[in-house]
Order: sequence, then C-alpha cells, then structure tokens
Amino acid sequence: MENMVNVAVDAMGGDNAPFEIVKGAVEAVNEDKRVRVFLVGREPVIREELKKYTYNEEQMEVVHAEEMIETGEPPVMAIRKKKDSSIVKAMYLVKEGQCDAFVSAGSTGAVLVGGQVIVGRIKGVERPPLAPIIPNAGGVSLLLDCGANVDARPSQLLQFAKMGSIYMESVLGVKNPRVGLVNIGVEEEKGNALTKETYPLLLNCPEINFVGNVEARDIPAGAADVLVCEAFAGNIVLKMLEGVSSVLVKKIRDGMMSSLRSKIGGFLVKPALKQTLKAFSTEEYGGAPLLGLNGLVVKTHGSSNAIEIRHSILQCIAFKEQNINEKIKEQIVLED
Amino acid sequence: MENMVNVAVDAMGGDNAPFEIVKGAVEAVNEDKRVRVFLVGREPVIREELKKYTYNEEQMEVVHAEEMIETGEPPVMAIRKKKDSSIVKAMYLVKEGQCDAFVSAGSTGAVLVGGQVIVGRIKGVERPPLAPIIPNAGGVSLLLDCGANVDARPSQLLQFAKMGSIYMESVLGVKNPRVGLVNIGVEEEKGNALTKETYPLLLNCPEINFVGNVEARDIPAGAADVLVCEAFAGNIVLKMLEGVSSVLVKKIRDGMMSSLRSKIGGFLVKPALKQTLKAFSTEEYGGAPLLGLNGLVVKTHGSSNAIEIRHSILQCIAFKEQNINEKIKEQIVLED
Repeated sequence: MENMVNVAVDAMGGDNAPFEIVKGAVEAVNEDKRVRVFLVGREPVIREELKKYTYNEEQMEVVHAEEMIETGEPPVMAIRKKKDSSIVKAMYLVKEGQCDAFVSAGSTGAVLVGGQVIVGRIKGVERPPLAPIIPNAGGVSLLLDCGANVDARPSQLLQFAKMGSIYMESVLGVKNPRVGLVNIGVEEEKGNALTKETYPLLLNCPEINFVGNVEARDIPAGAADVLVCEAFAGNIVLKMLEGVSSVLVKKIRDGMMSSLRSKIGGFLVKPALKQTLKAFSTEEYGGAPLLGLNGLVVKTHGSSNAIEIRHSILQCIAFKEQNINEKIKEQIVLED
Repeated sequence: MENMVNVAVDAMGGDNAPFEIVKGAVEAVNEDKRVRVFLVGREPVIREELKKYTYNEEQMEVVHAEEMIETGEPPVMAIRKKKDSSIVKAMYLVKEGQCDAFVSAGSTGAVLVGGQVIVGRIKGVERPPLAPIIPNAGGVSLLLDCGANVDARPSQLLQFAKMGSIYMESVLGVKNPRVGLVNIGVEEEKGNALTKETYPLLLNCPEINFVGNVEARDIPAGAADVLVCEAFAGNIVLKMLEGVSSVLVKKIRDGMMSSLRSKIGGFLVKPALKQTLKAFSTEEYGGAPLLGLNGLVVKTHGSSNAIEIRHSILQCIAFKEQNINEKIKEQIVLED
C-alpha cells in the first residue's frame, strides 16, 4: 500500500457537503485502486453518509474535525483560530506527509491562505497561483493566476508559465503546451507595464513554448493551452466565462419557450444541446490546483457535486505519479 | 437648417467600406430629418455608391479625402502624417465646428489618437474613455474605459463614472443609472490598489448612483448600468463577452446539426433563437463613444454593417440635443 496516492478531502466544504462530497469520494475509490481518501470533518455525519455505499474500506479513512470554516469568515483569522476545522486538519495531513494532496470545495480564501501558511511554498516559488481548468471550443486551457493576490510581478508570471506548462503536460497530457500571455492586443508592445515587462521573459525562457500575447476574444476559441496573467485579470476572464455562458444558456432556454413551434423544436434539440453545453461548463473539469506548494491543494467550486469531487481526487494520481513538484523544483532551482 | 445635427462619417473605414457605410448613412438621413451626414473619403467612390439610393440631398454632403489610414499603421504617426486621410479631415470638421460628431469604423488607434490630438479634450477631463454599450440579460450597460490607455488613476475612474452616468441617462434614457466598479469581489476591501482607492471616491460622489463593486460574473446579468474600470480590465470584459458568445453560438449550431432529430428541432427553434441571440450581440447597439472630447467621436466595430452605422449616426442626435458636453463640463468644473 506504500505507493498509494493519499488524498485528504474536506467533507464539510461547499454547498453540497457532506452528501455530494462523500459520494464523489466513494466513486473515486471505486474507480481507481491507487487512491486512498481521508474524509476530514465531523465523523458521525461522515460515517452516516458512508453507510449508503459499498467500497473497499482500506481505501477510505475518516479523520474527525469538530469545526468548520464558513465562506464569509476572514480567512487569515479562520486558519489561525480554527485549529480543529476540516481545512486546517487536512492541510496538516499534507504538511506532515500523511497525505499527498487535499481537495476542498470550501472557502477559497481559507484554502489559499492555509495552503501557503500550513502546507507551505516550494523553496524559490514566489507566489503559488490558483490555476482553474477552463473549457474552450476544442478542449481545455489552464488559466493562472486566479487567486486572491493581485498585482503580480513579471518574475511571478514567468513562474506561473513554467508551473502551468508542467501541469498541463504531465497531468492533462498536452504535449509541449502553448503558453499565451493574456493581453489587450497581440503585438509585443501592447498592454500595461506588467505585460510589457513579462513578454521578453516568456519569449526568452527555453523551458516553455511561448506563442505570444493572447487577446481575451481568442481565449474561448482555445488560442493557448496555458494562459498567464495576474489574478485581477484572471478573475475577470474566469468570471466572464461563467457569467456569459450562464446568461446565454438561460436566454436560449427562454427563446425556446417563446412559441409552440420553438417549444417543439426545443424538445427535439435538447439531448444534443445538453451534450454540447456540458462540454462548455467550468464544472466538468475538476478543481483548480494551487501550484507551487509542498503537496497538492485543489480548490473545487463551492457548488461542487460528486462528479467534480471525483474528477478532482483522480487528478491527484497523475500529479503524484508524474512527480509534478519534483519537476517544479528542478525548474525553479534552475532559474535561481 | 441651423439646428441640424451634423455628423461626419468615415466613408473609408472598416471592413465593409464604403458600401455598408454609405448605405447606413443613407438610412440614417432617411429615418431622421434632424441629421445631416458628411461622408468623408474618396469622392468618386462615394458618389458612385450614393447613386444607388434615393435620399434628401440637403442632408448629405461629400467631403473628399485622398488618403486612408490602415488598421495596422502606428496611430500617432498616421494622424501626424496623413493630413489628407478621411479620419484626419473628419476630425478637423468636428474641431472647427462644422460637424458635431464623427463616426468611424476605421483604425481604433487612429480614432483614439485623433480624438485627443485634433478634436481635443474638454478642459479638466484627464482622460477620454472609450465607452462601448454592451448587452446584458435585461438591457444594456455602458463599459468604460475600453480604450488604449491602461493603468488609469482613481481620479480618472471617478470622471469615467460621472461621464458614463451622464451619457447613460441622457442618451440612452436610463434614469439614475447604477454605477458599479468592476472588481474581483463585492466587499469594499477587495481588489487591487486602483479599485481600493477608487471605491471611496465613487461612494462619496453625490452626482452618481454608486452601487458598489461588481464581479465580472454578474456583468452579463446586468448588475450595473455603468461599469467603471481601467482599460486593461475593460478590454478583457468586452472581448470575453464577444469571444464566449461567439464560441457558444457556434457550439449550439454544431449541436443542432449532430443528428436528424436535432436538425429538425434546430429548424423549428431557429426563428426564436435568432431573435434571442440578436439581443445579445455587441453589434446591435451602435458604436462606442469616446467621451470627454470637444465634440462627439464614435468608434464602431471594424466589421460594422449599415445597421450599426445608422444606429451610431442617430445616437449623435441625442448627444447634441441633450447637451451632453455641457453637462460634462459642469460636473468636471464642479470637481476642480
């Protein structure tokens, strides 16, 4: 059992905890023998949920944590004070080496702070980026940084590009991933002070496949596999993707309900559209890794269901088996 | 004829010049007797196009300009050198008071530079924002700034909020428009240095109806009528809106073509969907005004067709009749 991938899972985090979280954990262990899940949270509640399912008990542990960190709580204070919360306890499992990874649908702020303060950064990593996988017309891209720390430096964006390339290639299997710098024009001289200084750093970095500036308009079309930007810009990209998709899908539904003719048509196209729109939902691709830490921390949507939790847990296998953190260490040391 | 609204139109600018531009100009003068268009560009070409239509000749002038500024040209140089270009000549018509406004589908850079250098800023305006009208679930919002000048100051964002409110209320008829600051969270303390400094300025400005921070996710739902941000962020909002819409619509079309059942359904829902999607297209709402200049300059999409040109020309009527620039002057002077 030495080679198993041990994943701590926040059983209390997110809108659908603990039901969907426990369900996703069971599905993950039933799908892959290499994974062992540590469900962290209120033990009686978790045990009650687990009774509903059949699974290999050697692949499932429960770690009791009495407290919970709420979404609205100031994260730094919560991490400091709530030592017996599911997030803090799970972070210590990773820090102390019992677990390789941690998956949470809970407070984004607490996960970001806990990752840095408890799990800790890899030596040389200036800032660990939160890197959601976003859908595009033909596949997916990794968007980093979407974290809470804005106003990044050019050297940090260079590190994002390297870490993102490693993750995209090793975990998602994209060979020689195309790295794009999110900008307001494609020409080298376009942009703000940050992008202008970052461009030559990316251009002259031999470890990445830099394809130049990428305009936001071309992001949904899939102009790059790894999209590099500071967190304010990354947040807008991610949230516009979610917001525009959701409004358009609603408008299309309303349009289909507007006449008898369109209602019949809507009934007929529904199965095909469902498939199409599923591929374009940000919730289909597992959680966002927080890269550059001494262990893997994955933040999933607050609204995560069992599917997203299962995906996120299974992604941790590739992360460990591909030695992502060793690769990151090599490139960061190389840089120093 | 003294009270007519005189609009210079760049007959040579954009992908569909001169055909769609001339057509849009003819449609505008045929729709409203208050407007007179000055088509600026190569006279023989314009005259040839005009022959296709019937219109009141007193409402249509042609001003010859031999040169054209191409989209790829460095704008500052182009404005300086090409004195006989349609953009430069039209800008002088506004500067010298022969025209009240200028509409162009040509080079964005040249229009922005020409607006500042030739038409000139209203005294006290620090930076003229480019303010496209974007569709949302229930109507439209004004997004400013989307121009070429990034890294704005808080005092500039405050001016954007004031000018945007005036435009939204007087030209688009939205009473007491809700002003939102584009940010990565709704709480006051969220964001980067710029948004944190701008928030209290907007909160304490009695001339605007500030509703707080707006997350990008809520922009397509219509969380504010006037969306204030610096140009890098504004560009991402605008381009993501365009990019996501275009990819989703294409995906939906492909989905409808995927089986016989969905093809039949697609045929039935098509008229209803066309209507729905039209309302969500950025090209339905005329061009983007460049606010704060001594005259109105409107930049339309490079791909503008006659409809967008007509809308943009007709918007100039409200701009003049509502004395937008007088109102801007009052508020900017008040501020000094």
